[in-house]
Amino acid sequence: MQMYKHVMFASDLSQSCDAVGLKAKEIAWANSAKIIMVHIVIPFEPGFSSSINAIADAVTQAVPPLEQFAKSGLEIQAKRLGLHDAKLLVGIGSPKREIVQIAQERDVDLIIIGGHGLHGLDYILGSTADGVLHRAKCDVLIVRMRE
Amino acid sequence: MQMYKHVMFASDLSQSCDAVGLKAKEIAWANSAKIIMVHIVIPFEPGFSSSINAIADAVTQAVPPLEQFAKSGLEIQAKRLGLHDAKLLVGIGSPKREIVQIAQERDVDLIIIGGHGLHGLDYILGSTADGVLHRAKCDVLIVRMRE
Repeated sequence: MQMYKHVMFASDLSQSCDAVGLKAKEIAWANSAKIIMVHIVIPFEPGFSSSINAIADAVTQAVPPLEQFAKSGLEIQAKRLGLHDAKLLVGIGSPKREIVQIAQERDVDLIIIGGHGLHGLDYILGSTADGVLHRAKCDVLIVRMRE
Repeated sequence: MQMYKHVMFASDLSQSCDAVGLKAKEIAWANSAKIIMVHIVIPFEPGFSSSINAIADAVTQAVPPLEQFAKSGLEIQAKRLGLHDAKLLVGIGSPKREIVQIAQERDVDLIIIGGHGLHGLDYILGSTADGVLHRAKCDVLIVRMRE
């Protein structure tokens, strides 16, 4: 199978998304594709009373440790899943936008992302998966996660 | 790769969804999976002024030829794609509900469906693909269709 050359696994770093990563690994292997593992850090959620300066300070202080934490999280997850050759990338910003942006920059032809939670009879895709689906220029595989 | 045992290709019978069918074929082959090809017939769109009897008559008369037409359409598409071993199924009703219903009845673990059209920067998934995504209990692969 040579349908995909660059497969992206969008990870939220949780153990429950290991199943998504394992599917990404199998698909990449079957396609002899490169695998990119991505986690997006949301830098800051401003409170209603924050001043511009307080926001600027918080962003400057918060992003580097969060980015480092995410990088370590990706390394640990990649090791756990045996994704030794995966390219690990941390983005900062809106997850849906960053995932699609990085996918385009890296010529990704398949994004693999988990579909969270069951609400009544319907799955809640989550705004990230939903946003990726509507923005991505490539194929998207939604993997159902058992919780 | 043995991730999927029953792969469903949801077809709108158009030539532009042949690319979706070819991906379904490759994925089924790589997984040694059975492939089910499905098209759903929407039986009737009542006009505002239709009486109950007129609707009942129209439904009774319209469904068998439409179903037959869809079956022929599936056969032609299956032949065109070399899907000689595919199980061909025609459902009647709401496409998103029927696709998910048939998928559950047939133990489908991956539904493959086309994502239509580009509207500005965003893809329009179409209400069928969107509905399937939110209802399906299994993985869903959205294949981008070039138009």
